[in-house]
Amino acid sequence: MNEHRIRKIVAEAIEEDIWTGDITTDSVISKNERSSGEIKAKEEGILAGLPVAEQVFKEIDSDIDFESLKKDGETLRPREKIAVVSGRTRSILKGERIALNFLQRLSGIATRTDKYVKKVEDHDVKVVDTRKTTPNLRMLEKYAVRVGGGRNHRMGLYDAVLIKDNHIRSAEGIEEAVKRVRKSHMVKIEVEVGTVEEAEEALCTGADIIMLDNMSIDEMEEVVETVDGEVVLEASGNVNLENIDKVAAAGVDVISVGALTHRIRSQDISLDLI
Amino acid sequence: MNEHRIRKIVAEAIEEDIWTGDITTDSVISKNERSSGEIKAKEEGILAGLPVAEQVFKEIDSDIDFESLKKDGETLRPREKIAVVSGRTRSILKGERIALNFLQRLSGIATRTDKYVKKVEDHDVKVVDTRKTTPNLRMLEKYAVRVGGGRNHRMGLYDAVLIKDNHIRSAEGIEEAVKRVRKSHMVKIEVEVGTVEEAEEALCTGADIIMLDNMSIDEMEEVVETVDGEVVLEASGNVNLENIDKVAAAGVDVISVGALTHRIRSQDISLDLI
Amino acid sequence: MNEHRIRKIVAEAIEEDIWTGDITTDSVISKNERSSGEIKAKEEGILAGLPVAEQVFKEIDSDIDFESLKKDGETLRPREKIAVVSGRTRSILKGERIALNFLQRLSGIATRTDKYVKKVEDHDVKVVDTRKTTPNLRMLEKYAVRVGGGRNHRMGLYDAVLIKDNHIRSAEGIEEAVKRVRKSHMVKIEVEVGTVEEAEEALCTGADIIMLDNMSIDEMEEVVETVDGEVVLEASGNVNLENIDKVAAAGVDVISVGALTHRIRSQDISLDLI
Amino acid sequence: MNEHRIRKIVAEAIEEDIWTGDITTDSVISKNERSSGEIKAKEEGILAGLPVAEQVFKEIDSDIDFESLKKDGETLRPREKIAVVSGRTRSILKGERIALNFLQRLSGIATRTDKYVKKVEDHDVKVVDTRKTTPNLRMLEKYAVRVGGGRNHRMGLYDAVLIKDNHIRSAEGIEEAVKRVRKSHMVKIEVEVGTVEEAEEALCTGADIIMLDNMSIDEMEEVVETVDGEVVLEASGNVNLENIDKVAAAGVDVISVGALTHRIRSQDISLDLI
Amino acid sequence: MNEHRIRKIVAEAIEEDIWTGDITTDSVISKNERSSGEIKAKEEGILAGLPVAEQVFKEIDSDIDFESLKKDGETLRPREKIAVVSGRTRSILKGERIALNFLQRLSGIATRTDKYVKKVEDHDVKVVDTRKTTPNLRMLEKYAVRVGGGRNHRMGLYDAVLIKDNHIRSAEGIEEAVKRVRKSHMVKIEVEVGTVEEAEEALCTGADIIMLDNMSIDEMEEVVETVDGEVVLEASGNVNLENIDKVAAAGVDVISVGALTHRIRSQDISLDLI
Amino acid sequence: MNEHRIRKIVAEAIEEDIWTGDITTDSVISKNERSSGEIKAKEEGILAGLPVAEQVFKEIDSDIDFESLKKDGETLRPREKIAVVSGRTRSILKGERIALNFLQRLSGIATRTDKYVKKVEDHDVKVVDTRKTTPNLRMLEKYAVRVGGGRNHRMGLYDAVLIKDNHIRSAEGIEEAVKRVRKSHMVKIEVEVGTVEEAEEALCTGADIIMLDNMSIDEMEEVVETVDGEVVLEASGNVNLENIDKVAAAGVDVISVGALTHRIRSQDISLDLI
Repeated sequence: MNEHRIRKIVAEAIEEDIWTGDITTDSVISKNERSSGEIKAKEEGILAGLPVAEQVFKEIDSDIDFESLKKDGETLRPREKIAVVSGRTRSILKGERIALNFLQRLSGIATRTDKYVKKVEDHDVKVVDTRKTTPNLRMLEKYAVRVGGGRNHRMGLYDAVLIKDNHIRSAEGIEEAVKRVRKSHMVKIEVEVGTVEEAEEALCTGADIIMLDNMSIDEMEEVVETVDGEVVLEASGNVNLENIDKVAAAGVDVISVGALTHRIRSQDISLDLI
Repeated sequence: MNEHRIRKIVAEAIEEDIWTGDITTDSVISKNERSSGEIKAKEEGILAGLPVAEQVFKEIDSDIDFESLKKDGETLRPREKIAVVSGRTRSILKGERIALNFLQRLSGIATRTDKYVKKVEDHDVKVVDTRKTTPNLRMLEKYAVRVGGGRNHRMGLYDAVLIKDNHIRSAEGIEEAVKRVRKSHMVKIEVEVGTVEEAEEALCTGADIIMLDNMSIDEMEEVVETVDGEVVLEASGNVNLENIDKVAAAGVDVISVGALTHRIRSQDISLDLI
Repeated sequence: MNEHRIRKIVAEAIEEDIWTGDITTDSVISKNERSSGEIKAKEEGILAGLPVAEQVFKEIDSDIDFESLKKDGETLRPREKIAVVSGRTRSILKGERIALNFLQRLSGIATRTDKYVKKVEDHDVKVVDTRKTTPNLRMLEKYAVRVGGGRNHRMGLYDAVLIKDNHIRSAEGIEEAVKRVRKSHMVKIEVEVGTVEEAEEALCTGADIIMLDNMSIDEMEEVVETVDGEVVLEASGNVNLENIDKVAAAGVDVISVGALTHRIRSQDISLDLI
Repeated sequence: MNEHRIRKIVAEAIEEDIWTGDITTDSVISKNERSSGEIKAKEEGILAGLPVAEQVFKEIDSDIDFESLKKDGETLRPREKIAVVSGRTRSILKGERIALNFLQRLSGIATRTDKYVKKVEDHDVKVVDTRKTTPNLRMLEKYAVRVGGGRNHRMGLYDAVLIKDNHIRSAEGIEEAVKRVRKSHMVKIEVEVGTVEEAEEALCTGADIIMLDNMSIDEMEEVVETVDGEVVLEASGNVNLENIDKVAAAGVDVISVGALTHRIRSQDISLDLI
Repeated sequence: MNEHRIRKIVAEAIEEDIWTGDITTDSVISKNERSSGEIKAKEEGILAGLPVAEQVFKEIDSDIDFESLKKDGETLRPREKIAVVSGRTRSILKGERIALNFLQRLSGIATRTDKYVKKVEDHDVKVVDTRKTTPNLRMLEKYAVRVGGGRNHRMGLYDAVLIKDNHIRSAEGIEEAVKRVRKSHMVKIEVEVGTVEEAEEALCTGADIIMLDNMSIDEMEEVVETVDGEVVLEASGNVNLENIDKVAAAGVDVISVGALTHRIRSQDISLDLI
Repeated sequence: MNEHRIRKIVAEAIEEDIWTGDITTDSVISKNERSSGEIKAKEEGILAGLPVAEQVFKEIDSDIDFESLKKDGETLRPREKIAVVSGRTRSILKGERIALNFLQRLSGIATRTDKYVKKVEDHDVKVVDTRKTTPNLRMLEKYAVRVGGGRNHRMGLYDAVLIKDNHIRSAEGIEEAVKRVRKSHMVKIEVEVGTVEEAEEALCTGADIIMLDNMSIDEMEEVVETVDGEVVLEASGNVNLENIDKVAAAGVDVISVGALTHRIRSQDISLDLI
């Protein structure tokens, strides 16, 4: 990740929550009171976002000491200590909710991703995310997917070509659409197809990746056989924890799962002064 | 809401997704091609965020025409049309995912809030959110809560006083903590308590609101009786769709539900070119 | 205050004054020359803004040493030393005017506020500011009011409800206006009234605060008697140092004084190299 | 002025005041209610900042109609109409205080400047401002000085050379200091002197302007005679409305007056819905 | 390109040049004077950046009329008209230099690129740029390369993998380095090699592109023969107008030319009021 | 220079290149690997921009150690070491290209300026730049001109008056144009003239500087004689390394050379890990 952007995102989140000041803490807690707080897991899961949580406290108060006891990607057990924050009580209380908001969401994504990945670990397949991420947090959410053992699909509209139905219709055919984007030797070209015939057509155009959109398991198996390893095959659409192993068994190389980020379940993590 | 901030958030989301350009669309779709797209509900729910979706398209291309067919707060039925976007095909395709990411998340929050509110509609109680919101989207998420029939707890650390256990401990008592914050006649003072005794103590200090944190139904009923309408009582902690009606029946005035925003389930909404 | 926002305001002020460079200092003073400067009071008053002045120098040059000899809120006597700045001469000279511009204005506000507060110290009344602050410096100016012993009215349009004549007219009555805003249990509702009758009407609606706008002393006394401590009463309009004690004597709880910030008199404070 | 920067300053001021929303107006006033408001003078003075006030409303709501009835620099009489704002009532109420905060302060500066300029109108002398301006509003305040008939000293540290005592001391003499800055043929060089002898020394170095800092009238007259029109002479220090004509009579070309901007008195201007 | 980013870059450039105001134009030219200006080529070349120039004028004054007579990518002849700008004289004069600075530089890049591309038009080879672009103008400069008939190498460190000597050394071999980056199915992997042996090694690892860094023509030919079309071959290093055809003749697929952007020669283009 | 602005420009350049992350380096190089890199000259020239290069690394990683072995303005010989960068390998590789892009361009400008300055060193004349600089890098480029021994013309439209032909035409004469701008005693007034007669006219108006635009050597000599040292004379237009000494010999005081910045040739400088 780019630490620069993390600092920017964190600074905005602090502005959002504190704005003109924490009127409770600044009144009740004396400026020089110091304490320590423990960040602790309250349920099982995969940790993600600890450096972001650290940055929240550092940005609020450069004198805060943040000791990480776990690393992103490690498994959390209930009541396990994740980190210890020490310094001015005011700064710890101001940063608490902001740090947890990041940490709980990112760990939630990593934990869910881990479940999907585990479900297909016997197959030679990658679980990837989509662009269905929270606006302005994509870099962090895609990082959490990687932490959870998933891989990233493209970061945005700028770093890879994905030719969808609307593009194909406008270009009047897959072939023409692919021809028009073949401008750069640096980016991969993926074509979204909905039928076995379209998949075959895409194969002929020299696409690097073919996305099988909402295909049945039977159709996918047919495409897998036809393609025979020549290009990367990505299954997409309505994949969930119940059916992902069947999709994997169809032989595709990659399975994209919108639910990795379009559903967020904050992991239960707390900060307690000690 | 402040339209200014919406424009800023939307502009950043566009930067995030498009960055140096949509390399697929700019190659495949000709500059002057025009079309229309329909935004449609694919499942039942409450609509929220349509003006934000509109702003996405307007910011990408000021010539886009965005016709709203529904309004925020209205119920969505599957296949119901929400809006029609018309203009340059390029602009519609560039904005599609960004607009949907906002619309699906905010509608998801409004829909969940609606469920909680409906569950307690026979009680004279308000369902409110918390500060467990997505970093940098709080204004929008709290708006979605209101759209779904909920009310907002404080916006941040700056607009209301909430004295929590750590503040009380540092001040060595509720009374002293409340005394320290009684600086402004403009903001309300809320005190978080965990026992009936503490609630009584808070009552004596002249707090405006008392938050009953993780109390049992019995304890809450006892506090309700003691307080007898003198201050606002807020139930907080582990409230879910299963138990919220029991909490309401205990007689509190307000119930805060973290799950309104710390879990996000994107509502299924699509945009299709027509 | 939010140190984050102070850093942002200070950084913009430095950009404003230095822009592409201090062409005098960078030419005349050698890069490695070091010196010390004393910040001194030149007249009596109340100090406010010293941490902002310190931030100016720190932002220009992180190696500057800033030793505070006084604290915000303390009384200044002529020729009294406030702080000593040591480090590169270039950095001290570049920051001098910017630091003084903040310090003089904020101390000016604190000093004026102190005079108003002193004038009514025998009454149980609070002197508060208004939203008539300098654009983009409100957080700092309201801080200076607090330093001078005053209290803050709302920070902006977002953190408290103030129903004014135009709102009442549009809602066709105080009762309806109050009813419409009673959405949140977290913010206080203040109603501005111009007559005794309106004050009584506002009292019935359950407003938290009633602002008596431009009322005569007699009218205020009548309202004070009627209200009898049930809600907070705020006197507003044309209050000055000459009449504030009479307003206080009328028995209101709060007196808002626009002049605290809509008139600025920079306190005389200097920085001299030693 | 640079309209770009005005837009930026205005946008920040709106953010400061409205932040997450005007909770009173958005609740009480219906979205489609429209009205008109008159901006009116309530005391005599010089108008300044009307385009800034207009920009406030335009930025809040691009559909607002703002009709200017007076122009910056014109004299205001009590009860005289300055402008009429028409459009959504919500937008007018949201912008009212922000627009007035700019308008009142800038008109206050223009009005004070006008008094100083009138006081010396029989002399061939210019009244100029200083860098003692409100942080982040310098461009606007220096504009108001021009509107009031004054002239601007340098805009910042970047656009002209002003060699002060500390520079001279560091360079060990006026001559050496001037020599070091003589790098650019594009900027003027001003030297601050405190005695007649120093003024003579500065004259020999070829400075473009000599600032006579806190000199007595007698000393200034002596320097005026010596210099005999060869360079521009600027009087500076403790100039006020009482003594400015005597300073002018001493024969200097320019008189700088810190009080033009280091004291702010908001002109009384109101906005009333009609 | 992302129009959003263009607006941001243009706004900063206006701030840079105009800052507090165009003191010449605002004094000399009356506010209401209107005129037209012709943007004209003064030498032969390829036009690039006209929409950026238009944006400069639109941003300074939304009422400016900008009529484009040529399109980016078209050939310019000396004295040929490119566009006509009409509106307030003040706005035209303020934008003139800023618009030309963009237009001349981008057209200069397109013109140089065109020369390189023409030089190898008989070969089936693409001329591409590098990351040796002007800081903060990369998106525009890479656009100009495309306008001139070139193609883009990666946009930055984020959108494609380029394994260079330092990466290989750190990974102790090409194979290990490629293995470590094989995380995403969405980005291409390029490996930089300096010898024929390394090229063969890279081929075996399954890289998508092999960059032949500073190889002799003989070596390149050897690699071309070995690779036999299996991967894309890119020649890099010390390519200039004199030797590019020989490099192309060696049979590589892509030639990257730093000089496209690390040398800038502003195309001679003028704006004259008519 | 203003270090603040350098930090801002550098931060944007890092965002431009790294954006969501350096996918190669973050995959291949382990987080804790450390190394050192040497920045070395590969051709002769004048060094400029080393503090900017240092800032690039510091901003990416505050733990980087940057040891400067040369200073801006010193002559570089091929293979001479300029600086040693030590720290995390990841940080060095991420910053390499960004740092070099600044360093090579600024050194290129200083080197070219040095050539022009050397060419006229026997004349009492200054070589100055123009506003034909790269958008958003003007402060840095004008700094490089100074480093190379040149001087700066005005920084922008805001810090000096330059009356050009369009201004004169609009004011119907040089005299009227000069009269209109004579508002400030702080900025110099330059008038652009194209003929000897216009130069004489400008002389009479009291302009500080007269720019001789595209005049022949004979004409310039005639103006020099007429003016006889009363004002500064600046030669402008089509000056190059071949003819600059003849222009200087004509006796002007200043020669402005657009080519100092409207042509950029990156100096060959490399960074190698050691």
